[in-house]
Amino acid sequence: MAAPIDFYFDFSSPYGYLAAHVIDDLGARHGRAVAWRPMQLGAVFKVSGQQPLLNIPLKGDYAKRDLPRTARLMGLPFTMPEQFPFMSVAACRAFYWLVDDDAAAARALALALYNRAFAEGQPIAQAPDVVAVAASLGHDPETVRAALQDPAVKNRLRTDVDAAIERGVFGSPFIFVDDEPFWGVDHLSQVERWLETGGW
Amino acid sequence: MAAPIDFYFDFSSPYGYLAAHVIDDLGARHGRAVAWRPMQLGAVFKVSGQQPLLNIPLKGDYAKRDLPRTARLMGLPFTMPEQFPFMSVAACRAFYWLVDDDAAAARALALALYNRAFAEGQPIAQAPDVVAVAASLGHDPETVRAALQDPAVKNRLRTDVDAAIERGVFGSPFIFVDDEPFWGVDHLSQVERWLETGGW
Repeated sequence: MAAPIDFYFDFSSPYGYLAAHVIDDLGARHGRAVAWRPMQLGAVFKVSGQQPLLNIPLKGDYAKRDLPRTARLMGLPFTMPEQFPFMSVAACRAFYWLVDDDAAAARALALALYNRAFAEGQPIAQAPDVVAVAASLGHDPETVRAALQDPAVKNRLRTDVDAAIERGVFGSPFIFVDDEPFWGVDHLSQVERWLETGGW
Repeated sequence: MAAPIDFYFDFSSPYGYLAAHVIDDLGARHGRAVAWRPMQLGAVFKVSGQQPLLNIPLKGDYAKRDLPRTARLMGLPFTMPEQFPFMSVAACRAFYWLVDDDAAAARALALALYNRAFAEGQPIAQAPDVVAVAASLGHDPETVRAALQDPAVKNRLRTDVDAAIERGVFGSPFIFVDDEPFWGVDHLSQVERWLETGGW
């Protein structure tokens, strides 16, 4: 089987939420697994000098219109959280705590966190928010709470974010098919075509 | 016949160049004319705090890869000009000098300027560059040279750029179908679908 597609995203990225709902099926159509790789756009912005999308004059207003419109086109529920942008470090840590032992459970947790934020519009920024979502999937709250403070988990996240930036990831969603980079929900059709054709 | 689609672009925008090659056919498939509206991203960036795409760390490197890749997918020639970003005010003025008298000629000039810049990779920043392209289409060089300094033409450009920003245009290409805004070559498929369906 060919190498997995790499799917980079930030839990505070609404476009990442949209992509998360379709990326696994897209990969599966072409015999590819998908490696989910949450990262931290805040760390990227320190390198790129960019700022959160919705804070940018003109562009932010457009995104507020484009997001629900694109969600409707994709048949996905969408609610903009009241608190936005929000910190996503706790959500990331919960993911990396799980992923090596059980990638499927980590993926399920990621999707549940994303749905909590952008389908329901509820907060996922604070540790108790993340613990509650994890508990709803059957994870032990005390264990998750401890994992969010585990130095090994914190270090794992830092290492993975640094590696993402080193690889050129500057936005969310950001997808690699082998070494070919694609940025944005808008590029999913190019991702699909690349998988079909092997490139053009 | 329904109202024209508004097609905003900057002559220094390589993604605008790609869109310019397909937007008229896209409109025509749905019985729509296209009003070409060159504008100045430099004026927009003063409002949005953004900077030219290729100057942005990480994002610029990606664009240098995405542009030729997207051009190949669209079957269009693409050469990045050595001087980039470049001033596009002279190209804009030449367009606005022509457009009220002969919109088709203005469109042909715009496409010739875009091809000079991004198919051939040659400069179009300076007045003599623009005059040469206009002359190749049969326009009198002296008349064009004078038009580029005409206060009425300069004022027309300023007015139209201000109106574009007022309308929320922050990038290139930027398209309105009636009052619905769409940003980017990547959104052309949404433009097409909006025209087909009248919205979703």
